[in-house]
Parts: sequence; C-alpha cells; structure tokens
Amino acid sequence: MTRTRFHQGLDELKQRLLIMGGMAEQAVDRAIHAYGTRDVELCKKVLEDEKAINASEREIDEIAVDLLAMQQPMAVDLRFLFSVIKINADLERVGDQAVNIAERVIDLAKSPVADLPVDIARMASIAAAMVHQSLQAFIEENAELAQQVLERDDIVDGMNREAFESLTRVMQNDPTLTRQALDALIVTRNLERVADHATNIAEDVIFWVRGADVRHHGVS
Amino acid sequence: MTRTRFHQGLDELKQRLLIMGGMAEQAVDRAIHAYGTRDVELCKKVLEDEKAINASEREIDEIAVDLLAMQQPMAVDLRFLFSVIKINADLERVGDQAVNIAERVIDLAKSPVADLPVDIARMASIAAAMVHQSLQAFIEENAELAQQVLERDDIVDGMNREAFESLTRVMQNDPTLTRQALDALIVTRNLERVADHATNIAEDVIFWVRGADVRHHGVS
Repeated sequence: MTRTRFHQGLDELKQRLLIMGGMAEQAVDRAIHAYGTRDVELCKKVLEDEKAINASEREIDEIAVDLLAMQQPMAVDLRFLFSVIKINADLERVGDQAVNIAERVIDLAKSPVADLPVDIARMASIAAAMVHQSLQAFIEENAELAQQVLERDDIVDGMNREAFESLTRVMQNDPTLTRQALDALIVTRNLERVADHATNIAEDVIFWVRGADVRHHGVS
Repeated sequence: MTRTRFHQGLDELKQRLLIMGGMAEQAVDRAIHAYGTRDVELCKKVLEDEKAINASEREIDEIAVDLLAMQQPMAVDLRFLFSVIKINADLERVGDQAVNIAERVIDLAKSPVADLPVDIARMASIAAAMVHQSLQAFIEENAELAQQVLERDDIVDGMNREAFESLTRVMQNDPTLTRQALDALIVTRNLERVADHATNIAEDVIFWVRGADVRHHGVS
C-alpha cells in the first residue's frame, strides 16, 4: 500500500466520520422536533436511524484498524486515527441520546400537554451547535474553535441545573404534571450529555491538532 | 525498540488499565455507599478521585499512542491497543457516573430520609459486577464471559424502567417526597449508564478476542 493510498484511506475515514456526525446531529434534531410536536412517528424514525448509526460506527472502527495495520503511520496520522476512533464512539453516543429523547417523547405523548418552565428548544440548539462546531473544528484542524466548544459546555450545564430546579418545583406544586415534568427533566439531562460528547470531541481535536503542532516543530 | 520491550509496554498498559478499572469501580462503590449512608464526606472523596481517574485516562492514552508509534504492531496487538483506547474511555465515564451519583447524594442529604420503592443497592451491585466482569473478561481474553455481561444489561435496563415507574408514582402521590424520589431516579439512570459502559467494554473485549481468533486461524 502506497503512502498515497494510505492517505486516500484517511480521507475516506474523515468523510465517513462527517457523514456519521451528520446522522447523529439529524437524530438529535429529529428527537427535539418530535418533543415540540409530540410526533411519535418521527420518534420511531429516530429509533430506526440508530441502527444505521451503530453500523456506521463499526465500519469506521474497522477502517481505522485496517489503516493502522496496513502501514506504519507517522505520528501525525496516528494521532488522527486515534482521534477518529474516539470521536466515532462519541458520535455513536450522541445517537444514543437522541434515542433516549425519542423514548421520552413517546412516553410524554401519553400525557396531556403541559406548559413547563424550561426552554428545551434553546438548550437543544446550543447542544446541537456544539456537536456541529466540534466536527467543524475537526475538519478545519482548528484547536481554537474546539476551545470555544469547551467554554459553551458550562452554559449547557447551567441550563441543566436550572431546569432541574424549576421542574422539581413544578412536580412539588402540581403532582398532576409530574410525568410531563419528569420527561422534560430527563430530556434536559440527555441534552446535557450531548453537550458532554461534543466537549469530548473538542478535546480529542485539541489533542490531535496540538500533537500535530508538536510534530511540526520536530519534537516528537 | 525490541519486540520484547514492546510487549513489556503492552503489559504495562494492561496493568494500568486494570488499576484504572479498580479506581472507577471504587468510585461507584463509594458513591453508592454514600447514597445509603448519606455520607457527604465520602461524596467529596468521589469528586476528588475523579481527577486521578481523568489523569489516568490521559496517561493510558499517551502510552497507547506511543506504543502504536514506536513499532508496527501485529494485527493482534493492534486490536488490543484499539480495545484499550476504547475501554479506557468507558472506564473514565464510569468514574463520571460515580461523580453524578455523588452529586445527587449531596443534594439528597438536604432532604429528610424517605423510604422509597427502589432497591438502589441491588441495582448498583449488578452494575458494579458487570464492570468487574467485563474487565475480568478483558484480562482472561474471555469472549464468553464478555457475552454474559451483555446479557445482564437487560436486567439493569428492566430495573431502571421499573424504578422510573415506581418513583414517578411516589412523586404523584406524595409531592413532599419529590426531591428524594427524583434524586433516586437519577441515581438509577446513572447506574444504568454504568451498566452500559460495562456492556461497551464487553463488546470491545469480544471484538478484540474474536479478532485475535481470526488472526490465529490465519485469516487476517
């Protein structure tokens, strides 16, 4: 296998990871859209999509291992492959969170609509943007952009804590809304985990890019 | 670097991963013990331990990358290193779940003691046993033992669903217990995630061992 073919392999891997990222982002978008509209059919689509995301994870892992096996990679390529393996696992878990949200929406659809003191859509849009931005940082090999993702994680954590408190009060004050408030509370925790995975991805990007920088300066 | 030194490196990596596993297991044990006894001091220890677990994760990753870089590993060693990288990430997240539990216990300790219809200790002991068994399967390169871990995941999922229903009813019937029931509910979800991570580890062990088997039969 020539160095050129090896690099074609790396490019293919990158493309596949981006497609995987798109699938995971779409799953979260769909689950959150379904939350807003109580669209159980859309939830079922999210559950279906999970299989494709899981299959994609396995394929990416296999390609990464094959590339590692076929040629002694240079340090920079090695760190890239290492990052791909880790980012891949995080994206699969973003998909899992979408499934968790979809399951809560299916549950929620059985209860009357309740007006709850939580802005799920806003929290979802920040979490989804973090995933998108972390992948953007990956494509651009941009450690600064990745750093911004880390900073936004605190915002989502704060929103999650606020949601916990306000939804607990709803349950205490009006037990007839317990089910809906609980479903919403779990959705906020799932979104917080989506943001955590974006944070993990951003950290992997920083690890990879800084490693590459070190290499370019001839240290490793 | 000789093949022997390379294999010493692999052995060291395995040892470190086991130590990391022990730290993660201990963190969960401590958090659950603290849940039972409302021991806030013990919770703070769990929060402290997280730093050591995170540092250990980074060290293991660095060693794995260095080993990949130093020598063209054979397919079987490659799959081993690949599994180590993934298991390492899962163990770190087991530690995160312990932290989440400890945070809930700190919250719980502010509320009066409540008798709740959920057996957290039993669920914790199954989840912790799954982590232990998945690492055991890793040490023994035992895909069958890993398979058993996968089967136990359904038990924990079932317990989690039951806990969700019974704790929701508590909140609906007695809003004064909302806070405690909610803390318990989140702890059960955290334990379910510990079991998920054990399942991931078991899957990685199967991937590794079956890959090794294939290699031993001369296919790859």
